[in-house]
Amino acid sequence: MKLISFLLHGKPTFGAATDGKVLDLGPHFAGRAADLRALIAADLLQEADSFAKSQAATLPLSDLELLPVIPNPGKIVCVGLNYGEHVRETGREVTEKPALFLRVADSQVAHGQDIVLPPESGRLDYEGEIAIVIGKGGRRISQADAWEHIAGYACYNDGSIRDWQTATTQWTAGKNFWRTGGFGPWMVTRDVIADDKVMTLVTRLNGQEMQRTTTDKMIHSIPAQIAHISAFTPLEPGDVIVTGTPGGVGAKRNPPVWMKAGDVVEIEVDAIGVLRNGVRAE
Amino acid sequence: MKLISFLLHGKPTFGAATDGKVLDLGPHFAGRAADLRALIAADLLQEADSFAKSQAATLPLSDLELLPVIPNPGKIVCVGLNYGEHVRETGREVTEKPALFLRVADSQVAHGQDIVLPPESGRLDYEGEIAIVIGKGGRRISQADAWEHIAGYACYNDGSIRDWQTATTQWTAGKNFWRTGGFGPWMVTRDVIADDKVMTLVTRLNGQEMQRTTTDKMIHSIPAQIAHISAFTPLEPGDVIVTGTPGGVGAKRNPPVWMKAGDVVEIEVDAIGVLRNGVRAE
Repeated sequence: MKLISFLLHGKPTFGAATDGKVLDLGPHFAGRAADLRALIAADLLQEADSFAKSQAATLPLSDLELLPVIPNPGKIVCVGLNYGEHVRETGREVTEKPALFLRVADSQVAHGQDIVLPPESGRLDYEGEIAIVIGKGGRRISQADAWEHIAGYACYNDGSIRDWQTATTQWTAGKNFWRTGGFGPWMVTRDVIADDKVMTLVTRLNGQEMQRTTTDKMIHSIPAQIAHISAFTPLEPGDVIVTGTPGGVGAKRNPPVWMKAGDVVEIEVDAIGVLRNGVRAE
Repeated sequence: MKLISFLLHGKPTFGAATDGKVLDLGPHFAGRAADLRALIAADLLQEADSFAKSQAATLPLSDLELLPVIPNPGKIVCVGLNYGEHVRETGREVTEKPALFLRVADSQVAHGQDIVLPPESGRLDYEGEIAIVIGKGGRRISQADAWEHIAGYACYNDGSIRDWQTATTQWTAGKNFWRTGGFGPWMVTRDVIADDKVMTLVTRLNGQEMQRTTTDKMIHSIPAQIAHISAFTPLEPGDVIVTGTPGGVGAKRNPPVWMKAGDVVEIEVDAIGVLRNGVRAE
């Protein structure tokens, strides 16, 4: 099942997408789950799946204004330097533990919305990634149990303002500019993608391929990430883990490639779909 | 006015504290503000002040179970390396921009609750700081306007698990262990503390003074912090900025001092009050 968050008549709701059509799930779950995060927390994904299969989806997906897959996650934990090629291009070394940073929710946009280039910088870069949405919460989750805690997967663009990212040792500012990240288009539920399936991740800028990798090249696997993060913080339903970008970022090209107004950036994951965002100047 | 968040008969509410007594403000603001963050967002601080002055406070403060001052902030932005003595003891250099990291809400406890030493580490350290609570939201707030965006101040213990903080370049994991930070006891509203007043900040561990500074020694002033942070992210009512710790942290002493079960740590700010937390092993 592909689950989206979107606006209907100006109000946020959530639904299931099939073949370009969407079924609004909001009315069916009224009083039980106000949004996708609440649906996951109330363990209603299976009911949503059954219900969606029994109903006709009638809203054209292309007409809808989407929201970030989970509009209001409690935590967005991002993993840096998780593919060898990217570690090498940054001149850093592989660390035993993953380098982590946090994003805030309003640093993101949905599929179809524009990423925003702020006047403070010209160094807006893409980072194609795969996002995990947590289903069942937990603390100190073992690697063996980790898959059971995943609700699903989405594409993610960990958009970065590079000069602000590297102005100090801590990347926070450059990773949290308003509306610089992309999260979408939907969450593909875990039942659709076999655990540990090797997914292919591709980033395209204006149609040109900029990044390509497969998930078996991750330094810290998805279960290792879940185990490490949940060692220090309780993971809750709807929390998001962004699993790292491969080589080929714009900042490390010669000459560097920066995203500019009018660009179109796509993150494609074969098992998930395509997250597409334009770029506009603020 | 001193505003607290607390539990009454097991339910979260908020109130005004005076001379060891508390007035529950929840009933008066029912339907308008469910918590302190909402009170600030609805611009009701002045009404709360007038109302509190007209009523008798009857709940003994010492009987109440407090919550972190703002239990559910949208963002907790922490400033690292903001006093010269601390920059020097860490062997780092002063940077033109402040080093920032984020904390998540459940990494904090309230005044009177125990900070938790996790089994993953023995390197639990204190960091006495002053927290700003944002009143009026805004983006790209100028330094000149910054004071107008402050709702009030609280004491903060930016408790850190040092080996996890420094395992990679990014401090996130060591700054976000569950219940390692302290935020309290209350928010003193801005009208009580003159803008730019020099406050004295002291940290005591088991009664022994470990850190002492005054806020005029900040490298990045409070207005500079607000201007810098709001340049990249919209600040919202109830957001928290934690303004940095002075020299004297446990990790940089010889021999190092780590907090252990049974310790009592106090952060005192003369203009605010004392944040006191025990330490227990998980």
